[in-house]
Amino acid sequence: MYFATFHYNGEEQFGILSENKENIIPIKKILNKLGIAIPKTLRDFVENSDDTLIKAIKDTLKAHDFEAIPLESIKLCAPIPYPRRNLICLGKNYMDHAKEVVGLPGADNEIPKFPIYFTKIADPAIGNGDIIKNHKNITNMIDYEVELAIVIGKDGINIKKEEAEKYIFGYTIVNDISARNIQRKHSQWFRGKSLETFCPMGPYLVHKSEIPFPVELDIKCSINGEIRQNSNTKNLIFDIPYIISDLSKEMYLRAGDIILTGTPSGVGLGFKPFKFLKSGDVVECYIEKIGTLTNKIE
Amino acid sequence: MYFATFHYNGEEQFGILSENKENIIPIKKILNKLGIAIPKTLRDFVENSDDTLIKAIKDTLKAHDFEAIPLESIKLCAPIPYPRRNLICLGKNYMDHAKEVVGLPGADNEIPKFPIYFTKIADPAIGNGDIIKNHKNITNMIDYEVELAIVIGKDGINIKKEEAEKYIFGYTIVNDISARNIQRKHSQWFRGKSLETFCPMGPYLVHKSEIPFPVELDIKCSINGEIRQNSNTKNLIFDIPYIISDLSKEMYLRAGDIILTGTPSGVGLGFKPFKFLKSGDVVECYIEKIGTLTNKIE
Repeated sequence: MYFATFHYNGEEQFGILSENKENIIPIKKILNKLGIAIPKTLRDFVENSDDTLIKAIKDTLKAHDFEAIPLESIKLCAPIPYPRRNLICLGKNYMDHAKEVVGLPGADNEIPKFPIYFTKIADPAIGNGDIIKNHKNITNMIDYEVELAIVIGKDGINIKKEEAEKYIFGYTIVNDISARNIQRKHSQWFRGKSLETFCPMGPYLVHKSEIPFPVELDIKCSINGEIRQNSNTKNLIFDIPYIISDLSKEMYLRAGDIILTGTPSGVGLGFKPFKFLKSGDVVECYIEKIGTLTNKIE
Repeated sequence: MYFATFHYNGEEQFGILSENKENIIPIKKILNKLGIAIPKTLRDFVENSDDTLIKAIKDTLKAHDFEAIPLESIKLCAPIPYPRRNLICLGKNYMDHAKEVVGLPGADNEIPKFPIYFTKIADPAIGNGDIIKNHKNITNMIDYEVELAIVIGKDGINIKKEEAEKYIFGYTIVNDISARNIQRKHSQWFRGKSLETFCPMGPYLVHKSEIPFPVELDIKCSINGEIRQNSNTKNLIFDIPYIISDLSKEMYLRAGDIILTGTPSGVGLGFKPFKFLKSGDVVECYIEKIGTLTNKIE
């Protein structure tokens, strides 16, 4: 199932893509049929859902015809515009990317022996088609980073690697936009990654049942049609079970948490000369089985 | 006014300290008198309060006698146990502390030219008297850091230094507990500062009207009665107007956000040999006009 948060008739709501991916079925129609209270947001739904509910929804979708809204009539939002905490991000988690930024602004000088975790504000995360502001008064070094994002489905601490998938609700794409000069200036990475509109997310939140585990998906980013990043999530240095197990050591992961797994090589900072984003550039982030997240620079 | 979140008769609520600081007046009694809806948490109150409401509460407190609960009958919680986002922290923002940790584990090698921002999870923040877990299976390098915490009172972006105080609701104390080995292992500081129970906060959230601006308050931390940290918030390298102005450049600060302003010298990492926290140690964090936040290590 592909979950989407969207605007329709001036109201923000969420729903599920139809099988042909041309329409969206509002969640309220499905949950009404099941006699279940309607959560206000997809985040609330994720925080309170379990396998039984997901199965019931699947069965209901099969058994009934629901009135659906054509995709062209809605405006997609980020699936979870306001996460319950900052997004947790991994730095330098593809070897080719770790090598390309050694010694460059905002990066330090080593290939990581352990995961590098930092956080990013999404306030709100922006959706497919939204504009990334260029913040010209403080930066001319805006960079893109396509990343597979894990959305956690239930609370856990000290999770074993073998149990990791049970704690996942699903997956989406996040473009971890960064102002490289700000990232370097403040030495820790949080600040340069948290400017307004720097968290494009979507287009959909894909339930884990759609994606075989371990997760091996092609991942790409192109700027104005030119492919810059091109890899597969099987190339993560620290894989998803490792990340969930390691991050949850003596620290709770919470349902609704979003974890960005890192970006492959080909970021603007990795080119000589640098290839940072310019006004009007169109950034397309693609991950197999999830879709394409497209945003334009102001 | 001194706001407190507390447990009483099995219910979590919040209220205001009586003038003699021996009793607490539940907020619902005051707001009922004013005919105003009762916010569920102090965080909700902060997010929705303004100068008019604060003045109305002050006037009502003067004009009426309210039934109050003796402090010894309640259990204090962190004023804001679940902040709306991660806490934003400043690293090395007192010169004496910046110097004491140069080259040591988890620190880098420079006195900061610009603020170092990172984030910390409070999930939940723990209150006065609560136990800090020792997480023995992953660390034996637990350290204390007394910090003045700013609680933001209204949303703002690109805030001018001269306007900074308007965006503040009040102040509290946070003990930025850190596992130094984890902080170093993951290179970025977030992970080693976000273990369960690593965010003691309180005892009170003190409204800004109690504290003259600029904020010049004695700040101390003692372990089992031995004073380790002893400074004044006037010694911040980057002061509060600078922090609020700088942090809000092209990034929204939101009502309810909590900003930790950094810690003075005397942390366990600064001693030779190190003086980390041991099981049973009692940590007291004191800031003038706010109070003392006391926690024991498991």
